[in-house]
Amino acid sequence: MASDQNNQKPHDLLSELLKKELDAVDKLIYERMISEYAPRIPEIASHLINAGGKKLRPLLTLASAKMCGYKGQYHIHLASIVEFIHTATLLHDDVVDESKKRRGKPSANLLWDNKSSVLVGDYLFSRSFQLMVETGSLEVLNILANASATIAEGEVLQLTVSQDISTDEEIYLKVIRGKTAALFSAATQVGAVISGSEETIINALYEYGDALGVAFQIVDDLLDVAGDSKIIGKNNGDDFRERKLTLPFIKAISSCNQNEKDFWKRTIEKGDQTSEDFNTALKLMQKYEAIERTRLDALKWAKTAKNSLDAVPDNDIKVILTNLADYVVDRVK
Amino acid sequence: MASDQNNQKPHDLLSELLKKELDAVDKLIYERMISEYAPRIPEIASHLINAGGKKLRPLLTLASAKMCGYKGQYHIHLASIVEFIHTATLLHDDVVDESKKRRGKPSANLLWDNKSSVLVGDYLFSRSFQLMVETGSLEVLNILANASATIAEGEVLQLTVSQDISTDEEIYLKVIRGKTAALFSAATQVGAVISGSEETIINALYEYGDALGVAFQIVDDLLDVAGDSKIIGKNNGDDFRERKLTLPFIKAISSCNQNEKDFWKRTIEKGDQTSEDFNTALKLMQKYEAIERTRLDALKWAKTAKNSLDAVPDNDIKVILTNLADYVVDRVK
Repeated sequence: MASDQNNQKPHDLLSELLKKELDAVDKLIYERMISEYAPRIPEIASHLINAGGKKLRPLLTLASAKMCGYKGQYHIHLASIVEFIHTATLLHDDVVDESKKRRGKPSANLLWDNKSSVLVGDYLFSRSFQLMVETGSLEVLNILANASATIAEGEVLQLTVSQDISTDEEIYLKVIRGKTAALFSAATQVGAVISGSEETIINALYEYGDALGVAFQIVDDLLDVAGDSKIIGKNNGDDFRERKLTLPFIKAISSCNQNEKDFWKRTIEKGDQTSEDFNTALKLMQKYEAIERTRLDALKWAKTAKNSLDAVPDNDIKVILTNLADYVVDRVK
Repeated sequence: MASDQNNQKPHDLLSELLKKELDAVDKLIYERMISEYAPRIPEIASHLINAGGKKLRPLLTLASAKMCGYKGQYHIHLASIVEFIHTATLLHDDVVDESKKRRGKPSANLLWDNKSSVLVGDYLFSRSFQLMVETGSLEVLNILANASATIAEGEVLQLTVSQDISTDEEIYLKVIRGKTAALFSAATQVGAVISGSEETIINALYEYGDALGVAFQIVDDLLDVAGDSKIIGKNNGDDFRERKLTLPFIKAISSCNQNEKDFWKRTIEKGDQTSEDFNTALKLMQKYEAIERTRLDALKWAKTAKNSLDAVPDNDIKVILTNLADYVVDRVK
């Protein structure tokens, strides 16, 4: 088992350990996705849910509940809920980003249309809401309602601050908390809440999810700049072309001189870009070690995630979650 | 008072009678609309909420709670929730319909962009969700979760069946239940639920909202075909041009001969329309009395709404709600 853990990716190990639960989640998702009157709904939703997603968020909920010794049945609901919310936000994001690819496949808005992406997203969100009510836990509903508001607010904030080169790291952190960390932390937190765990455990798992989510998104943003496009399943420099200010850009911009600032003003604020500009952007990031400094930030957040687990008693899953935090940032080694 | 009631529109009478509560709703809506980080949110949302909307849905909730003798504070929450949900669906609808006007003003997606409409809609929906949790009533949460799912499903269904001239009245009813009646019935039902009313009263108010919503939407669809564009605040024939099959079209199509069917196939299914086609469509509707028959359906639903109130003890508000059902269909006299 120990040697297995060294060879396998942590989320694959989690999937294996939680296979029975994950199968139950898949079953519930398919049951609840179905619409009697609108066959297009499961068609679109399963395009996304099957599209090679690692189901990381539902795994976090299942892992959290298992770690807290949960004996009931609602962890399956909760894991399905977070996957529904995640899928709904992906559908809406694709409309907002006008993206062409998602997980290496054509995005839903390209295969169908923006209308379907908006409405099927709404449908999945309302389905998740019904599942929440079924758990009968107002505490769970409260956490997920707050997470939903943070997600939506983060998305609007991102829209407001993109194209604005004065965006700083504090704002960036708010954006990615909404974009990613809010659902990660809700996913781990509800697993502990449904288990009736004590406050310190609930808080520890919340903090683990939050820090893991922040690390995950920083790495994602880094990969967009410097990752292998074959592995990440989308084109390099998408964020630059969409004039979206992620951490490596923010670090480079905050260090640059007046001449260089003019470059960012032209490309990001005015959106006047040539095909060579992304290379120039990369060179400026290298000059100010923006990529390396972003990587160090991601490592710091991974460490925060691991440290937060100190409050949780030792067990198999804790080991995997610790490795998962390392693995998430290992992607940019 | 009795003579006043004869001169004033029923929803104006309700607004007057419930002014204190409605002011509290406005206050709560403004408080909860605010986003610390994203000033665009209240900007967009208030464009809609202020745009001459009659706040009919929150009024229904307040009226229902008052009629049921509610003494608590959560009717303000519930009324704000239904207005938030309504505004969120309007924002998403405008993206889906690619509409240029809403309540006689440019729609939000035209003033800002589709992105903002999608995300601010999501934000308002998540805010409504937080308000629901604050009521602490799982029954209320259940009703609103189910209403949300019906709304989303109805919207997707509408997308699927538009441009399909085999759409029948049964499907149409499902679409408008999602589009309009689900939120009307939830609005009246939660007012009774929060008051702890008995089952017969809760059901009666649910049915009132449902039938009123159906009547309201049938009339809305009728006005699009035959209403005065200055009064309705949008162009005549929008549904025809958007190839959306509403009740007058469905009635005309189901009666027509083969030649006429070819007209509908060309204009609705193929979308091959000339500027004269809407007039031809109107003539076909007149030939088969589709407009008159649609009006009779609306009257029938208004009667159902009024009859459902039989189960409710007599009082001032019951009288106004009865008049409201008449008023809603009077728009097409």
